Amino acid sequence: MTILKVTVLSGGVGGARFTRGLLSLLGHRGQVTVIANTGDDMWLHGVRVCPDLDTLMYTLGGAVHEEQGWGRRDESSRTSDDLAAYGLGWEWFTLGDLDLATHLARTALLREGLPLSQVTARLAERWSPGVTLLPMTDDEVETHVVVADGQEMQEMHFEEWWVRHRAALPAVRFVQTNLATAAPAPGVLAAIADADVVVVPPSNPVVSVGTILAIPGIRDALRTTSAPVVGVSPVIGGAPVRGMADACLTAIGVETSAVAVARHYGRRPDGVLDAWLVDDRDADAAETLRSEGWLAGAAPTLMTDVPTTARIAADALALVGALP
Amino acid sequence: MTILKVTVLSGGVGGARFTRGLLSLLGHRGQVTVIANTGDDMWLHGVRVCPDLDTLMYTLGGAVHEEQGWGRRDESSRTSDDLAAYGLGWEWFTLGDLDLATHLARTALLREGLPLSQVTARLAERWSPGVTLLPMTDDEVETHVVVADGQEMQEMHFEEWWVRHRAALPAVRFVQTNLATAAPAPGVLAAIADADVVVVPPSNPVVSVGTILAIPGIRDALRTTSAPVVGVSPVIGGAPVRGMADACLTAIGVETSAVAVARHYGRRPDGVLDAWLVDDRDADAAETLRSEGWLAGAAPTLMTDVPTTARIAADALALVGALP
Repeated sequence: MTILKVTVLSGGVGGARFTRGLLSLLGHRGQVTVIANTGDDMWLHGVRVCPDLDTLMYTLGGAVHEEQGWGRRDESSRTSDDLAAYGLGWEWFTLGDLDLATHLARTALLREGLPLSQVTARLAERWSPGVTLLPMTDDEVETHVVVADGQEMQEMHFEEWWVRHRAALPAVRFVQTNLATAAPAPGVLAAIADADVVVVPPSNPVVSVGTILAIPGIRDALRTTSAPVVGVSPVIGGAPVRGMADACLTAIGVETSAVAVARHYGRRPDGVLDAWLVDDRDADAAETLRSEGWLAGAAPTLMTDVPTTARIAADALALVGALP
Repeated sequence: MTILKVTVLSGGVGGARFTRGLLSLLGHRGQVTVIANTGDDMWLHGVRVCPDLDTLMYTLGGAVHEEQGWGRRDESSRTSDDLAAYGLGWEWFTLGDLDLATHLARTALLREGLPLSQVTARLAERWSPGVTLLPMTDDEVETHVVVADGQEMQEMHFEEWWVRHRAALPAVRFVQTNLATAAPAPGVLAAIADADVVVVPPSNPVVSVGTILAIPGIRDALRTTSAPVVGVSPVIGGAPVRGMADACLTAIGVETSAVAVARHYGRRPDGVLDAWLVDDRDADAAETLRSEGWLAGAAPTLMTDVPTTARIAADALALVGALP
């Protein structure tokens, strides 16, 4: 039996659900590595919060709050509710009691001096996610948002813009802190170079996948890997499937359409993709891209449940001839 | 109306209960400063835990778990229980969900660079404890216990010895880390020098009050203050009123008796006390001490409720003529 080595560049909910479908599709025939965005990470109330890593860990480990898409099932918020009485701010960002256990464990290990990649591996032992879960970097790269506040510009952590302001403040641009000195985490470049296929799931192309690509070395690794790179559009019928990716796309001057996102990623060797799977509602987008030389296909891409998502993963792999 | 300035050197439960009685006694006629032991503090799961400061804050702020004597009323342990699944150790030390809010708030402020004394003042705003609450030091002084493990010596954090081993491992000695470079927190020495009376409540004389006295400068401040210093015996009828202070006393070669503890503190100017209140069951101890030149008295000293504790505080103050 040939083992298909698949590497996925993932944000939170969308990437986690896609990967769960991919695992369901591949079973023992696959060896999956997930490179997760850590740009949404932050120090909050003294602990390190890594939203996308946790969403991946919980989703693939069977502990996620299914309807919500992130956080733990049967979650409560006694600590967070009580913490608000100290008036330290960020009351709008609830740290769930169960989720907090993860933040505490992570913080303890980080404070012992372990890099995030080793900490992540240690935490993942509990959840058996069925993938090798890698943070994009061990460095503290954080996505900040510059917003226009009247005549003034204001910079805030991505989570403040996203969760507190629901992406409703017009973003002028996104800034990644600490990029100049950041390096891919151990294993990241090799996972791209040595893969049989690389997948960009329907994650936010700006603040999730875009942030991963911003880490020095990762974009080049995608350009030069011998593996084909296939993406699944996070935009269906001119709107993001989930979340407020349109606000992010608008901020960087990209139209919220399946074609525009593909062009934003770009075709290799200048860009990072070879192939692009769109929803069948966007069949014309696939046709347009094909006329421009892309490998492009259209299929149902709404990840409504695991079997459906497995079929989406199969359609994506099939586009680059990688379906086992 | 004359305001009586009282400074209390306190550990956790015993000192907190005594101070609550003292406040009840003095009302608006008193201005109380509590210097708290922070030798039991520790970094646990990435957050800073300060058991005695919290016991004082919760007890004086009306939020304490009354039967237990420490921690929050209506506490739960969802986070701690879940955290255990990560297998990082210290599962025997439960961080309550509500208590955790305090640890998180403290950690966040410490990580912002505030010294513990300022952090403590900020946290105390929520609880209005009715006292000025000062940590003995802003430095990270921790009490460790050296225990004999067969032929080997083993050193562990005080909380591990106290909570995990219930003080059942024979202690060879206590060690305070970082003492050489530790300094009293801002306000500590002035609170002793400027007091009208200093009280050593029935706290653990070794690992609570003893640790406070070990901070360079504090013992001398007690020796030289113009205020009288009165202590209340934590030993009644040859046994500690609460906790396992006898194990601590034994380790440092002090008998568990009201007389021996008084002599261990010593009379000023060589020691730190002028007066010693014992339980009326130890009336002979008071007599012995008086024959040695002490101000000593006997009275009921079991802190069964707040009014009773207020009377104990009155008896202690009366011993040095400081009862308002």
